[in-house]
Amino acid sequence: MLNLENITDRIRETFDNEDDDKALREILDSYHCADLAEILQELKPEERVKAFKAIDEDKAAEILEFLPPQIQVELLTDIGEENAARLIVKMPHDEVADVFAEMEDDETEAYLEKLPDNFSTEIRELLAYKEDSAGGIMTPHVLTVNKDMRVEDVLLFIKSKAEQDEFELYYIYVTDNQKHLLGVLSLRTLLTKPYKAKVEEIMTKDIVKLHVDDPQDAVADIFMKYQYSALPVVDLYNRLKGMITWDDAQDIVEEETTDEILQTSGISTELVDEDEIVFGSTVKAVKARFPWLFITLIGQLIASNVVNKFENTLNAVPVIAIFMPLLAGLGGNIGTQSITIIIRGLSTGQLNMSSAIHQIFRELRVGVIIGTLFGVLVTLYTWQWKNNIDFGIVVGVSMAINMSVATLLGAITPFLLKKFKIDPAIASGPVIATIIDVFGIAIYFTLVTFYLMKIM
Amino acid sequence: MLNLENITDRIRETFDNEDDDKALREILDSYHCADLAEILQELKPEERVKAFKAIDEDKAAEILEFLPPQIQVELLTDIGEENAARLIVKMPHDEVADVFAEMEDDETEAYLEKLPDNFSTEIRELLAYKEDSAGGIMTPHVLTVNKDMRVEDVLLFIKSKAEQDEFELYYIYVTDNQKHLLGVLSLRTLLTKPYKAKVEEIMTKDIVKLHVDDPQDAVADIFMKYQYSALPVVDLYNRLKGMITWDDAQDIVEEETTDEILQTSGISTELVDEDEIVFGSTVKAVKARFPWLFITLIGQLIASNVVNKFENTLNAVPVIAIFMPLLAGLGGNIGTQSITIIIRGLSTGQLNMSSAIHQIFRELRVGVIIGTLFGVLVTLYTWQWKNNIDFGIVVGVSMAINMSVATLLGAITPFLLKKFKIDPAIASGPVIATIIDVFGIAIYFTLVTFYLMKIM
Repeated sequence: MLNLENITDRIRETFDNEDDDKALREILDSYHCADLAEILQELKPEERVKAFKAIDEDKAAEILEFLPPQIQVELLTDIGEENAARLIVKMPHDEVADVFAEMEDDETEAYLEKLPDNFSTEIRELLAYKEDSAGGIMTPHVLTVNKDMRVEDVLLFIKSKAEQDEFELYYIYVTDNQKHLLGVLSLRTLLTKPYKAKVEEIMTKDIVKLHVDDPQDAVADIFMKYQYSALPVVDLYNRLKGMITWDDAQDIVEEETTDEILQTSGISTELVDEDEIVFGSTVKAVKARFPWLFITLIGQLIASNVVNKFENTLNAVPVIAIFMPLLAGLGGNIGTQSITIIIRGLSTGQLNMSSAIHQIFRELRVGVIIGTLFGVLVTLYTWQWKNNIDFGIVVGVSMAINMSVATLLGAITPFLLKKFKIDPAIASGPVIATIIDVFGIAIYFTLVTFYLMKIM
Repeated sequence: MLNLENITDRIRETFDNEDDDKALREILDSYHCADLAEILQELKPEERVKAFKAIDEDKAAEILEFLPPQIQVELLTDIGEENAARLIVKMPHDEVADVFAEMEDDETEAYLEKLPDNFSTEIRELLAYKEDSAGGIMTPHVLTVNKDMRVEDVLLFIKSKAEQDEFELYYIYVTDNQKHLLGVLSLRTLLTKPYKAKVEEIMTKDIVKLHVDDPQDAVADIFMKYQYSALPVVDLYNRLKGMITWDDAQDIVEEETTDEILQTSGISTELVDEDEIVFGSTVKAVKARFPWLFITLIGQLIASNVVNKFENTLNAVPVIAIFMPLLAGLGGNIGTQSITIIIRGLSTGQLNMSSAIHQIFRELRVGVIIGTLFGVLVTLYTWQWKNNIDFGIVVGVSMAINMSVATLLGAITPFLLKKFKIDPAIASGPVIATIIDVFGIAIYFTLVTFYLMKIM
């Protein structure tokens, strides 16, 4: 692990020593680009630019790839347009498109005019795709060969291309003259087959491919499922448009997981981008969190009305109020655990619809066991505390029922949503917890009214 | 997307038609191994074995890699030891070690004796490493070359190796005669440098590498950070022991994320493996969920005691109990949202300690804004409902304070844990929610006691 504090201190020291450039360069030289990205993020904005300017251009371009978009844009803006343009042409096309997508339209336009024509044309094409579609994620620089070439020709072709062009090497795609995708050659095949073998004879024709308009969650799913290190992206007519590599897919998987986690705790990722939920303005954060909280508010007002129906009971035995938070709290917690387990299982593929019944009963069993255990504990505690065994039993029984119902509801809801093709992650904890609250309170007050009031 | 229901129906039909093997094979032939793994999971165990037996051996071995461990073991056991042994030698070593790790020790031993000697020796070596360390995850089959070879020698060497050995081709590692790791050659370098170039001159000497004892969460972090498609694993003396590839790293990242998600909802992944939390026996599930729930129970009993302190207030104005779930519920929810955002931000690297103060204030602002908004709404609602504006104000002000404190606590806790080198994910929602409950109730009852009682 990096000792970030130590490193940033050493960098700051070089600034204090009348900008000791040599010492600064020495420090920066001794780290990997991914490390430098972490170090730069730890510095204050003005220190960050200063340090970034001291890094040589090739390395600086590579570091940018490891930084989050808002810091990429900040650095490029601060080093001046001329310097920025020089760095940008050294970055992979898909990264550049991501940076531009983060900028204002007129800024992007200004940069595009500064860049070489063929480069800016390709970037413009990428920007035309939706940012969160396969087209918006892919890199257009793919090595393509002709099916009539031989292995030795392909090897020579790669050597010749390497001198004039930046490209990532994962698979080699075989296309016809109109760029229709015909087959795939893995580097392993290329390196292990005889030099004289024809591409057509050794290529794979059963190709897993993506479509330019595929949404990013589908892209993530396909990568996770088939486990290829890169996949080709084609248009409607099967013409090869680009390629998505595993590291980009990895970023999407992370984004999609964040989405799922935020949604499960009732934060809407439909209205606000998940980056902005963490970083963005307070207004955006409020906008993302208000909707489900508001629904929870309505649910809790319904809970208040349920309690209100038992006004007479409450007036007769006010002490029962003491145990309301206990019941609501534990029911909500165990229910949320069930929701969390089922949603995560469904999203990793560990659970599927065929195991729904089995899994729901399993959760119910867990609820009954823990509920009964806690029910007994609470009965004993209340009996001791309030010196009233009947009261203890009412609280304990309510607890057991409430926790069991909570696991049942928590397990059923995600499966039900999935059955109706709704994303189970929106079975957000808060709302189910509120429903469990209402149930729990109703059970408790009913028991108090019909049992306790009779004997007290 | 696969229409799983449709495909499983068609497979079942072939079973009904006096085991129509030809039709079955035709269906199975038309899908990718990853698809077949999904299809097999959808079938009942006895159907699954029947279908699995109809698949030819090479493909069956590949399908196994896409299946979860418990189904791998089930299938291998059901097809008989002889057949299983033939499949196992076709699988990558790291996968085989994972399968054996899932079996009972004597079962593993029985299989190991059936396998070819050199194969079982290598597997035994892998099994000696801890399952969740780099050594337990890596594959030992790595292509190594000598630094004095030339590019053309390496190319010939790969061709000759391909005929006698299974290996994955990502990077080529350069070692000396004692297997010390000296450098790395990417396939890109190999394919683009002149045939006569010496390995020593073109290899990378600054190598990002893993140590056999690195725990799996460190492996996941290093992969996510440096974004290499494969990393070498060395022992204490820098001797190359194996390699971990991005698809294995991907699986670990998924496991670690599941861990984080479960922990955040108060499910202990220390005591029980996350697989078993989803699939395992009810006892295991109870064991994983009991501890934090028990701590929550104690917390909530403290909450009950706080309410009890205000017994006189409660007896004088029992109606105040009506709004207890409302306050506890919304405080808990908005607090959990804050925890979730901060924990996820810290784990993806979007947030770091240097932004702690900024982020805590941002959460507090969100809490104050939504709290004030909801406070006003609740004041108006209560005023209307109970025809008492003072009561309305007390409920509304409690709501605003409670939601603000909730965001503050939710934001501070993960940073604080991280500061003291504790995994922030254990800032489990349930416990913080309980603390927020206690706070909220204390504020509410204090306000009621000192303000409402005076004027009513």
